[in-house]
Amino acid sequence: MKSDIPVTSLQRLPIYLNYLKSLGGGGFISSGAIARALNMGEVLVRKDLAYTSAQGRTRVGYVKSELISALEEYLGCNDKKNAVIIGAGGLGSALLAYGGFSNYGIDLVAAFDNNPEKCGKEIAGKPVYNVSELKDGISRLAVKLAVICVPAKHAQEAADLLAGCGVKKILNFAPVLLQTEEDITVRNIDVAANLAILSSMV
Amino acid sequence: MKSDIPVTSLQRLPIYLNYLKSLGGGGFISSGAIARALNMGEVLVRKDLAYTSAQGRTRVGYVKSELISALEEYLGCNDKKNAVIIGAGGLGSALLAYGGFSNYGIDLVAAFDNNPEKCGKEIAGKPVYNVSELKDGISRLAVKLAVICVPAKHAQEAADLLAGCGVKKILNFAPVLLQTEEDITVRNIDVAANLAILSSMV
Repeated sequence: MKSDIPVTSLQRLPIYLNYLKSLGGGGFISSGAIARALNMGEVLVRKDLAYTSAQGRTRVGYVKSELISALEEYLGCNDKKNAVIIGAGGLGSALLAYGGFSNYGIDLVAAFDNNPEKCGKEIAGKPVYNVSELKDGISRLAVKLAVICVPAKHAQEAADLLAGCGVKKILNFAPVLLQTEEDITVRNIDVAANLAILSSMV
Repeated sequence: MKSDIPVTSLQRLPIYLNYLKSLGGGGFISSGAIARALNMGEVLVRKDLAYTSAQGRTRVGYVKSELISALEEYLGCNDKKNAVIIGAGGLGSALLAYGGFSNYGIDLVAAFDNNPEKCGKEIAGKPVYNVSELKDGISRLAVKLAVICVPAKHAQEAADLLAGCGVKKILNFAPVLLQTEEDITVRNIDVAANLAILSSMV
């Protein structure tokens, strides 16, 4: 039933998960308590959580540990998935060094770059390969996810390469609209735009 | 009237702006053409653009250059705003080196870190100060925006410091829910969660 969830709901599930994990301890938690803590509407919270297998109980709410497990299951935290970084510059290197991906079952296994000086080296213990080896690497490492961290002018090229290697899910940090086939899902993180949006919020 | 715009609409304005700028050239563009290119609904596009000062004309749509100007004006691209990075690690350094902020009138003027070895140095030409100098720096540099790039366990402390210095707008990369007063606006970018969301999308 995963395909039925709106992306807006899906996007909130990690927020619930982070919040519940930050609480620690056992016991129950109600959708109302979650809503108040996260400054959201209670109906919205209950609706979002209903996409998972968690069962709330009248008056007491959810068993905290069950709700955490249900969210983790929904988000695939227990399914190991290999991901790669395209572009081992500043951002790519920072992501390689970041440990938070493992919480979601994601293992950043390698980076690819076109700079020969970077290739064959390691960043944060992860190998950097030449982008000419992408197809072989994607297949050998059973990679399902890729993160584009190249400059804007090379992002489309990187997306085309990934598509040619069978990668269907791309997280794109370059501030460009990638043109891809319909069976490829792209999520964009435009950091500068996010800061501008924040600045425009009143 | 800026306060009337839903955040979901505001979030799409940079996407329209990036797309229009990528087109180049002059002439007109219709909301339908924008909608098709971005794979969105036409009504949604027209509604979003109506928050700006751009005026569409029957049959031909918007003058492209006028629409770009209207979006830039709405997003404050022409108002210069100083921002700082808290945490000059891998991610903070990558952001300092990234040139894309200037498109939105944002100038990353400095970073603050608690590592004495980093302080007094420069990253990408931007000074790194000791976090003990934060209050003075925020005031002297007239900083309105801050980006938290510290590890999760220090993020709340960073947010408290920023709040104490009068910063009202925080972009937070740490995967924690920051507790702040109501007059402070926080936007979160959780990269790992974004990759997990992408992985869960079908």
